[in-house]
Amino acid sequence: MDNTLFTVNNVWMMICTALVFLMHLGFSLLEIGLTRQKNTINILFKNVFILSIGIVLYALVGFNLMYPGTFINGILPDYFINLFGLAMPENGLTSDYNVGYTYWTDFLFQGMFAATAATIVSGAVAERVKLGSFMIFTIFYVGLVYPITGSWKWGGGWLDDLGFYDFAGSTLVHSVGGWAALIAVWLLGARIGKFKKDGTIGAIPGHNIPLATAGVFILWLGWFGFNGGSVLSADPGKTSLVLVTTCLAAASGGLAAFLVSLLRHKQFDLSMFLNGLLGGLVGITAGADLMSVSDAIIIGSIAGTLIVLGVGFIDRLKLDDPVGAIAVHLICGIWGTLAVGIFGELAGWAQLGKQSIGIVAIGVFCVTFAFIILIILKKTVGIRVSEEEEQEGLDIHEHGMDAYPDFRLNQH
Amino acid sequence: MDNTLFTVNNVWMMICTALVFLMHLGFSLLEIGLTRQKNTINILFKNVFILSIGIVLYALVGFNLMYPGTFINGILPDYFINLFGLAMPENGLTSDYNVGYTYWTDFLFQGMFAATAATIVSGAVAERVKLGSFMIFTIFYVGLVYPITGSWKWGGGWLDDLGFYDFAGSTLVHSVGGWAALIAVWLLGARIGKFKKDGTIGAIPGHNIPLATAGVFILWLGWFGFNGGSVLSADPGKTSLVLVTTCLAAASGGLAAFLVSLLRHKQFDLSMFLNGLLGGLVGITAGADLMSVSDAIIIGSIAGTLIVLGVGFIDRLKLDDPVGAIAVHLICGIWGTLAVGIFGELAGWAQLGKQSIGIVAIGVFCVTFAFIILIILKKTVGIRVSEEEEQEGLDIHEHGMDAYPDFRLNQH
Amino acid sequence: MDNTLFTVNNVWMMICTALVFLMHLGFSLLEIGLTRQKNTINILFKNVFILSIGIVLYALVGFNLMYPGTFINGILPDYFINLFGLAMPENGLTSDYNVGYTYWTDFLFQGMFAATAATIVSGAVAERVKLGSFMIFTIFYVGLVYPITGSWKWGGGWLDDLGFYDFAGSTLVHSVGGWAALIAVWLLGARIGKFKKDGTIGAIPGHNIPLATAGVFILWLGWFGFNGGSVLSADPGKTSLVLVTTCLAAASGGLAAFLVSLLRHKQFDLSMFLNGLLGGLVGITAGADLMSVSDAIIIGSIAGTLIVLGVGFIDRLKLDDPVGAIAVHLICGIWGTLAVGIFGELAGWAQLGKQSIGIVAIGVFCVTFAFIILIILKKTVGIRVSEEEEQEGLDIHEHGMDAYPDFRLNQH
Repeated sequence: MDNTLFTVNNVWMMICTALVFLMHLGFSLLEIGLTRQKNTINILFKNVFILSIGIVLYALVGFNLMYPGTFINGILPDYFINLFGLAMPENGLTSDYNVGYTYWTDFLFQGMFAATAATIVSGAVAERVKLGSFMIFTIFYVGLVYPITGSWKWGGGWLDDLGFYDFAGSTLVHSVGGWAALIAVWLLGARIGKFKKDGTIGAIPGHNIPLATAGVFILWLGWFGFNGGSVLSADPGKTSLVLVTTCLAAASGGLAAFLVSLLRHKQFDLSMFLNGLLGGLVGITAGADLMSVSDAIIIGSIAGTLIVLGVGFIDRLKLDDPVGAIAVHLICGIWGTLAVGIFGELAGWAQLGKQSIGIVAIGVFCVTFAFIILIILKKTVGIRVSEEEEQEGLDIHEHGMDAYPDFRLNQH
Repeated sequence: MDNTLFTVNNVWMMICTALVFLMHLGFSLLEIGLTRQKNTINILFKNVFILSIGIVLYALVGFNLMYPGTFINGILPDYFINLFGLAMPENGLTSDYNVGYTYWTDFLFQGMFAATAATIVSGAVAERVKLGSFMIFTIFYVGLVYPITGSWKWGGGWLDDLGFYDFAGSTLVHSVGGWAALIAVWLLGARIGKFKKDGTIGAIPGHNIPLATAGVFILWLGWFGFNGGSVLSADPGKTSLVLVTTCLAAASGGLAAFLVSLLRHKQFDLSMFLNGLLGGLVGITAGADLMSVSDAIIIGSIAGTLIVLGVGFIDRLKLDDPVGAIAVHLICGIWGTLAVGIFGELAGWAQLGKQSIGIVAIGVFCVTFAFIILIILKKTVGIRVSEEEEQEGLDIHEHGMDAYPDFRLNQH
Repeated sequence: MDNTLFTVNNVWMMICTALVFLMHLGFSLLEIGLTRQKNTINILFKNVFILSIGIVLYALVGFNLMYPGTFINGILPDYFINLFGLAMPENGLTSDYNVGYTYWTDFLFQGMFAATAATIVSGAVAERVKLGSFMIFTIFYVGLVYPITGSWKWGGGWLDDLGFYDFAGSTLVHSVGGWAALIAVWLLGARIGKFKKDGTIGAIPGHNIPLATAGVFILWLGWFGFNGGSVLSADPGKTSLVLVTTCLAAASGGLAAFLVSLLRHKQFDLSMFLNGLLGGLVGITAGADLMSVSDAIIIGSIAGTLIVLGVGFIDRLKLDDPVGAIAVHLICGIWGTLAVGIFGELAGWAQLGKQSIGIVAIGVFCVTFAFIILIILKKTVGIRVSEEEEQEGLDIHEHGMDAYPDFRLNQH
């Protein structure tokens, strides 16, 4: 390969890495914005922890576990040999798995993805999860679950051989996080006051909508890197097509969610618009490189519609997901993965079958693993804070800090 | 063209696209920061709507209308042929109009610009405009006005033939938004409490200055892409010169505005500093590629001075522009366009004349079009919320949401 | 050099420039978040002023003073010849000093660094420094001190000849700011209420932890450019290695700081986590291009530990540093510079000696210069606001503005 082209690819991938990094700020702001002020420090702490431990664990375990799929093909994973130092290839510039840019960039880009899966869970369990238990869960989920399921497809494993397609991770990242969110929300139970005895649903409004909105803008920006970088080169036609389909799906998702909720509830619902944007982004992620302009608009619009229906459906199941993570990442993740069999270059019944196999296989694995970790934690150290702590806020109890000490606040 | 150089150009243009995208977060934060908390959701909703509908409309209508200037040269615009799917060129990589990077990048970069024009209006009409009417206005303005006036210059139309120069849109983007802001502010009338019966001007302070300041930083960052991308290639000498003149004009604009307001009002006025930075940015935009270091500093300083004088002037005209959008985007947009005839490589009376023709022609078109749309809306569905809604806040009335439900607030 | 490779290098350096620019938003948010609401406008004003004046001064004075080291080698610095217009090289594309990308990019990248040194001081002196005096200090420090000490190493001066190594500025940027912070904090005295008569230390909690956290995320992002750009080319192996070591050191620093503070204080301390991340970033900066994965993790972990110990140590010295700038930038800056002699490719006693000479020489110069400027200001116009102003807040007194006028606030 031309040395200059190699350099260009690497520049593009480093920029995409930085953008995916920034998604962790986006998730942080979205999560605190959509929850109550008394748990703000706790959520921020979880997010900086996930990112930090995620990168370190990915260096020590995840990267070598995920590529080149040694978990499946070998008895003793290569990473034991390479532990603590990464397996820097001889020439210093490429690995066997990837020849278009450097090994270091490959590690860092993938590492930023790994941390995302746990961040998705963080929003769903907010305001009542026990911090220490969540941190232990994160270590297992980022350190083992994400790289193992990732290796099945992106590491050249059996789902890749089968023909399952997931361009940038509707399933491999978003659903992986979404399944754990679902299990965790179920095992944790709802926040006090969410589902009332008379059967009504109590609104627990988010405390800082400007920051939530800023979070969504930053997530959308991050998706330029998340999807744009998943081309794994700076190939002009592919990368720019991906950005176009990504942005059109986001915009369509937001517009559809706002319109559907306007029809249903007669109000201009900003939360639905924002989650619709995210739903559109998750929905296009599995096939962003395969779709036309009109495909992207349709996929995004359906995702946005699913958000409105999904959020209501989750509520009716008495599952309490404060930020809508299950609707955004799991429901739209599944939709996006199926959409590869319905729209675009690969569309067809055969592909739809392969997509379904991937969804089910990864779903079963994630649900099982998440359940085992969480049920062990629940039966031992516990996964939920005390009622007193939940009422008074996790910030004071676990962190001894207020997020906004100069402001007069309503407690609820 | 060298394939690798094509790739580099495309990477640069994609990055600039992402930066211009982020300007919509900057505008959102600036606008909410400089207005009252009770209208925060409403402003955020407008901004995510403008961006979303802007991108979709630009795919369906705007892009094909603007390039290659079919509105002027043909009876039946090409876009009817190409509707819903964009006119992907045969080789998939370039269009006739632009050969340095991909068609997709071209579309997305220009689409981000299109949405900007309506966003500028959003700030000026904040806190009293009726949401539905503003949304209809946005559809016409982003879908038709921006691409039509844009085609006159950037689409190779008559202003381009004439020799009018507007590098990155002091007129084509900022004044196009600014003229509509002027007309809208005039037709809407001032917010209750702004101009008192005794002739004094009531201060309506912005509710979140940290977010407003963050918005300006993000806008400045976005201008790296707005101006840097308007080179339409990664040409090293041109792009980097443009970044230098852009940053120096911003800095000089801020410093000048702060110094002039310090002399006039004996206070270190942060709002003026921030608007001065933006004024400097708008002022350099028409000729960022033509100016020397000293030109940029002078242009920026004059723009910053115009901000202080302009904000006072708009107030004396009894026009209520909550965020200073008219001073920043219209006055400094005009100044920047004229500056191309006064400073830099093209300076001269002939050029100054051409610049003036462009300013007047686009001004007349925008004023006329904005007036027609808005007067029809005013006479039919109305463009202003009820007095009760204005007093209580648009957030509760149109969105059923509070921006900050956990905080105790002052109502005003 | 290949023209396309030149273009790639320049694109990378422009992106890094934009990222370092954004660090000024990060510093602004961190500083206001960790201080009280009544001084928010003041801190934001200082930060936009520092950035603006920093860029303009770097064009007029700093850049020509720093490169190619004319302060040391010549009697009459070249910049008097080149004043106001920069010394644009003949071919318009490169300077003698740097041949890999354009002169303009070089100027802007370095200019963004220059402003950083003064920004570091801004946090340490927050909540009681007199604005006008701080602005005068900034002009001297950004205009003279930073470029002079910078020229010793990066301008090819005597420290460079000696073999002192400082890749991206643990000493040349962070300690230069940190030494001035130390002197300023000492000369200013503590904020009212920080050190009580009974010997206890009064907690003065920061008023907006979400914004402080956002600031740290943005600073980390900025470090992709700060360190990544300090390669001074887009060399794939070097840039991507630098990003990996930078991110691992940050993550390790945060984790170490949180664990050490958990052991000491039995709480999950978000402030320590955040400052630990920053400490890790400052610590890796001097040798980010020399370290292995395990070196980076160790250097970061030690930096994070030093943060916890350092913040306590500064407190015991009765020095009041509201944001922990001295621990982060001075202590970890020194640590990072020494680490080049202990870890990585250059490790050895000889190098450790050279690193020590550089630390001491620059420390003596900065301490002396900062002391002279500040003592003159103290004895003439004064450097500290009145007790009344400090109690009521600098925002009302110097700016006539509230940061959050719609919110009900606690005064303290």
